[in-house]
Amino acid sequence: MSMKNIIVAQSGGPTVAINASLAGVISAALGNDNYDKVYGSIYGILGILNDNLIDLTQKAEGDSDFIDTLKVSPAMYLGSCRHKLPTYEDDPTPYTTIFNQFEKYNIGAFFYIGGNDSMDTTLKLSHYGEQIGSDIRIIGIPKTIDNDLCLTDHTPGYGSAAKYIATSMLEISHDTYIYSVPSVTIVEIMGRDAGWLTAAAALARNEYNTAPHLIYFPEVAFDKEAFINDIKEQLKIRNNVIIAVSEGIRDKDGQYISASTAVNDQFGHKQLSGTGKSLEYLVKENINIKVRSIELNVLQRCASHQASLTDINESFKLGQTALEFSDKGYTKCMLTIKRVSDSPYTTAIESADILSIANKDKPIPREWINASGNDVTPELIRYMSPLIVGETNVKYKDGLPVYLSINHLDSSK
Amino acid sequence: MSMKNIIVAQSGGPTVAINASLAGVISAALGNDNYDKVYGSIYGILGILNDNLIDLTQKAEGDSDFIDTLKVSPAMYLGSCRHKLPTYEDDPTPYTTIFNQFEKYNIGAFFYIGGNDSMDTTLKLSHYGEQIGSDIRIIGIPKTIDNDLCLTDHTPGYGSAAKYIATSMLEISHDTYIYSVPSVTIVEIMGRDAGWLTAAAALARNEYNTAPHLIYFPEVAFDKEAFINDIKEQLKIRNNVIIAVSEGIRDKDGQYISASTAVNDQFGHKQLSGTGKSLEYLVKENINIKVRSIELNVLQRCASHQASLTDINESFKLGQTALEFSDKGYTKCMLTIKRVSDSPYTTAIESADILSIANKDKPIPREWINASGNDVTPELIRYMSPLIVGETNVKYKDGLPVYLSINHLDSSK
Repeated sequence: MSMKNIIVAQSGGPTVAINASLAGVISAALGNDNYDKVYGSIYGILGILNDNLIDLTQKAEGDSDFIDTLKVSPAMYLGSCRHKLPTYEDDPTPYTTIFNQFEKYNIGAFFYIGGNDSMDTTLKLSHYGEQIGSDIRIIGIPKTIDNDLCLTDHTPGYGSAAKYIATSMLEISHDTYIYSVPSVTIVEIMGRDAGWLTAAAALARNEYNTAPHLIYFPEVAFDKEAFINDIKEQLKIRNNVIIAVSEGIRDKDGQYISASTAVNDQFGHKQLSGTGKSLEYLVKENINIKVRSIELNVLQRCASHQASLTDINESFKLGQTALEFSDKGYTKCMLTIKRVSDSPYTTAIESADILSIANKDKPIPREWINASGNDVTPELIRYMSPLIVGETNVKYKDGLPVYLSINHLDSSK
Repeated sequence: MSMKNIIVAQSGGPTVAINASLAGVISAALGNDNYDKVYGSIYGILGILNDNLIDLTQKAEGDSDFIDTLKVSPAMYLGSCRHKLPTYEDDPTPYTTIFNQFEKYNIGAFFYIGGNDSMDTTLKLSHYGEQIGSDIRIIGIPKTIDNDLCLTDHTPGYGSAAKYIATSMLEISHDTYIYSVPSVTIVEIMGRDAGWLTAAAALARNEYNTAPHLIYFPEVAFDKEAFINDIKEQLKIRNNVIIAVSEGIRDKDGQYISASTAVNDQFGHKQLSGTGKSLEYLVKENINIKVRSIELNVLQRCASHQASLTDINESFKLGQTALEFSDKGYTKCMLTIKRVSDSPYTTAIESADILSIANKDKPIPREWINASGNDVTPELIRYMSPLIVGETNVKYKDGLPVYLSINHLDSSK
C-alpha cells in the first residue's frame, strides 16, 4: 500500500481536551509508515468543502514544542463549525465534493473530533463512503464537556471542565463563608440536557467544605416550591447556603426556568435572564435574605490552565488510537472509553458503531441522583472522582499560560 | 518591655493575597521576641467587639504546613465584615469596648488588613488611641483587587486578580476565534470606580492574540453611540470583536449603564450587575450580529489556583513588615508599596499617614487611557506587566487545590 494522507477536523463547542486528541493523531502519524501527511481542515468539515487545509505534519516537524503545547491549548486549534450536512437524498453535492477532496489529497483516513453533531456528520459520510465503495477510514473521536455521548464511559473534555467547576465551587465557598450574615449563593453551571457538569460541583466537598448544599439537574423536573422549601430547610442548619444549578433545569411541563422569568432591561426590552439570575429573583421574592448568582460561563470549556491531566492524557491516547484502529481496518465508528476499574483508575479504548451513538443523549442515571432530586449519590461521586485527577504542566511566560498560536484563524481582514 | 500580644483582622471583599499578609504577620511574630501570641479576630473588627478571637500562634505551631498553605488560600481565613464604625462623637461605645479588649488581651499592636473601608476603621481607632494616650500600634495593611488605594504603587490582591483576568481573556479569545461567523463578545470585569482590573485584560495580547479590541473604563464617560461606532469600525477589520468592559461604566451624567438594577450597600456604594448584559442588548438592537456577554464574576477575587507569585510574595512581605514597623514605633499608618524600578521589577515597603489614604479613590490617570477612551496606553501596560509574573506552588489532592480549612467559620448551626 502506497503512503496515504490523513485529514483531521474539529467541530462543535470547545473543550480543553480537544487539541490533545489532535496532538495524539499528529504524534501517531509522525511515527507511522503508512501515512505521509496530516492535513488539518480549518473550521470543521467546512475546511474540506472550501479547500481550506493546513499541513500539520510540516508544523510539527518545524517546531519541537508543537505537540506538547498543542496538547494543553484550549478550544480548537483548527477552528470549529456548527454545520449540519444535508441528507444525501436532499443534496448530494457536499458528499461528492468531500470525496473528491479526499481523492485529490490522497486521503486514507478522516478523523472527526467532536460531539453529537459531529458524529452525525461522521455517520453520514460513512454511509456515503459505504455506498460508493470507498475504503477511506472514517472514524469519530469523541469530545464534549457535557459528557452526554452514550456508549463511552465518559467524554474527553468532561474531566477538565469538571475540575474547573469543582475548583471554582471550592473557591466560591471560601468567598462565601467569610461573612457572618446569612446568604444564598446560586452557581449556574453549563449543561442543557444533562447534569454531569453540575454534579461535578459536589467534588468540591472536603473535610471542611460542605458546599454545594443543594444541586439541581435537568434530569429532574424543577419545582419552585420545593426549591424554596429546600433553601428554608438548609437555612435552619447553616447561615450560608450554596447551590449548584444546571442552566438546563425545566419544570414538569418541560419549560426552561430561565424562560419563565423575564426582567425589563434599561432599554425597555423584555430580556430573558439566565437560570441563575431567575432563581436569584425567585429567592428574593420568597425569602428575605442576601442572595447572589454566579454564572461560571464559557471558562468551563476553555480554562486550559486548570485542565485535568487524566483527561488530557486520555484525549491524547484517543488520537493515537484512531490511527492504530484505522490501520486495523476500523471505519464508520466512534472511539469509546471503557472503564476497567475505579481504583486504581484504569481504562481501555474501544470502538462503537456510530449508528448507536449519533444523535442520542446520555442523561445522569436517575439512581445517581438522590430521591429528593437535589443532590448526587455516592455512586456518582465514585464515577466522577478519578476524572479530575492530575495537573498538566502548562508553561508560563510573563505570567500567562503559553498556548499555541492560532494566527491561522485570525479574523483580521 | 514585657511581651505583648498582637491582634490581626481582615475586612472588606476577598482577594487571593489577603491571607498571604496574614501569614506574613504570623511568620514574623513567631520569630520576634517582643511578641507572644497572635490572635485572629473573626469577622473583622466584629471579632474584637464580640470577643471572638482565635489563637493563630497555636495553630501555626501545631501544623508545619500552616503558614505555607495559608499563604496560597483564597479569601479571608479570619472571615470578613462590612462594618462601619460610628464616629466617636455619635457613639463612643465600640471604641471603649475595643480598647478594653486590647487591654484584656495585653495587645501591643493591631493590624487591619483591608481596603478603603477598613482604612476608615483603622483611622478612627488610631484617632481614638491618640486621644486616650494609648501606645498600641495601629497599622493598616492594604489589600483590594480594585487597586484604588492612593499613595501605594499598587494594592496587594490586584496582581493576582489581573493575572486571572488576563488568563481568562486569553482563553476566551481561543474560545471565540474558532468560529468563522462574525461575532461580538463582551467581557464584564469588576471595578466600580476604577478601571485597573478591566485594563488588565489587555495583558492577554500577545504575538497572535489581538484581543481585547476595545476596553471601556469607569474613568471615561460612556457614550452609547461611540460604543456602537467603535464596534462597527472594528468589524471592518476583523470578524470577531472582543470587548472588555468595567462593571462601573457610567454615562456623562454619571448614570451607571446597568443602573436599573443598582441597589445600595451599607457604605453607599452602588451594587452593580448586568453591565455586560445591557451592552449585549444594546449591540443586538443596533448591529445585526451574533453577540454574547461573559461576566467574570467573583472568581476574579478568589481564584487562588491562578495567583500571581509576585503578588503573594509582596503581600507576605507586607505582613512581615507590619511587625517590623510596629517595633520601630510606627502607628496610625498604612503600609505602602513603592516601585523602585520596572525592569528588573523591584519595590520597597514604606508607610503613609492613614489620613491621606482613607476614603479616597485612585482612578487610572487619564493619560494612561488612549484619547478615544477605548484602550490602554503603553504606559499602563508597562505598569501592570510585572504584577502578574510568577506562579505559586499550590498543592493538589485528588485533583483539587489544597487550601486551609475554614472550619472555624463554619456556619452550621
